[in-house]
Amino acid sequence: MDSSAESGSSAETREAIMEATFRALSKHGYNDLRMRDIGEEFEMSRTLIHYHYDGKHDLISAFLEYVIEQYEGSVRVEENADPLTELNARIDQCLFGPEFDSDFGHWERMKVYHELFSQAQHNERHREVFNDHYVAIRDSITQVIERGIEEGAFRPVDAEETAQFITDVIHAARARRISLGHEDAPDQARRSVHQFVLASLLEPEFVVSSRQKTTGPAE
Amino acid sequence: MDSSAESGSSAETREAIMEATFRALSKHGYNDLRMRDIGEEFEMSRTLIHYHYDGKHDLISAFLEYVIEQYEGSVRVEENADPLTELNARIDQCLFGPEFDSDFGHWERMKVYHELFSQAQHNERHREVFNDHYVAIRDSITQVIERGIEEGAFRPVDAEETAQFITDVIHAARARRISLGHEDAPDQARRSVHQFVLASLLEPEFVVSSRQKTTGPAE
Repeated sequence: MDSSAESGSSAETREAIMEATFRALSKHGYNDLRMRDIGEEFEMSRTLIHYHYDGKHDLISAFLEYVIEQYEGSVRVEENADPLTELNARIDQCLFGPEFDSDFGHWERMKVYHELFSQAQHNERHREVFNDHYVAIRDSITQVIERGIEEGAFRPVDAEETAQFITDVIHAARARRISLGHEDAPDQARRSVHQFVLASLLEPEFVVSSRQKTTGPAE
Repeated sequence: MDSSAESGSSAETREAIMEATFRALSKHGYNDLRMRDIGEEFEMSRTLIHYHYDGKHDLISAFLEYVIEQYEGSVRVEENADPLTELNARIDQCLFGPEFDSDFGHWERMKVYHELFSQAQHNERHREVFNDHYVAIRDSITQVIERGIEEGAFRPVDAEETAQFITDVIHAARARRISLGHEDAPDQARRSVHQFVLASLLEPEFVVSSRQKTTGPAE
């Protein structure tokens, strides 16, 4: 499906198919999902689904791209925000999600996302989509850490490794909430990232001891 | 299946069924697995599978318990090891696994584990098994951190929250290696846990600044 060639109404059709896929996935899970389950959630003619998508796998890949599109670029950061404020906004966005004008909120979307993530070992196209998204998230966090280092707000850490660590912690907390039902996992992750990662970005004593530069007894 | 009533040969039968399930899962994935796929990997009579297990879901639950049993209690820690050595051994065990005397090594086992983990939102019995295992791992790490605090080797952190953070990072790194093919994710996680978590457990300057207790300029 070539989105650049979409007319207004075919963009609406795509949206309607995607939301029908959401409803079907929420009811049946990816495991047991059939094309006809999506058809049953779709208010227009089912032949439209088959016209636009070449079977379940093609539809699910397009659906995954649709879900990710809604996250990328949705972070609201005030202009001229300092690096720590921007970093916190990005972490909170990943952990707690943006607001959605839909029956399906952040956690319904994340359930589907994490279920497809675990299946990506079996699906090369999904793996590529997830890899691109992983890099996009990690790089957006890397950039704000690099800015903080340039501006002297953060100590000179390896920005990419730090961003990767934060991205992993976010992922694990969401997975634990979804799979094990630990409702407080995202809050715990937020606290731990602050305590272990952000505090060490800012802690002046820690800078001195880890860089082995002492200019006086009190520093 | 009541394991306490197993004769030697029925313990062997269980083992053979479990290894057949491994082979079938590795070939087909959980998504597409059928009981007959397991039967095709099983060298004894297929009726034995149906005698011991009440369908696919019962068999997969028993299989999950079997995989977890092989991990719990398999950590080799030298007697009288100091807390940091024991903590490192436990982290490495979770990240890199024990040796297995089988065709299926740590990563083959972890692929199945993580796939079932993502499905646990749909399966109450699996969710309970994963929750028990999660608590066992987190508590074993909590205990060694508490011992380190008691012995004065670690600064007085919240041991359970620290253990939880480490457990989450381990989980995320394994998932990223499996789903995205990032072979170096476990090594990266190990480095980051050392840099952000273990270093802060040990850093004397950090103890002073975070506890706000200074008994002298050198402490």
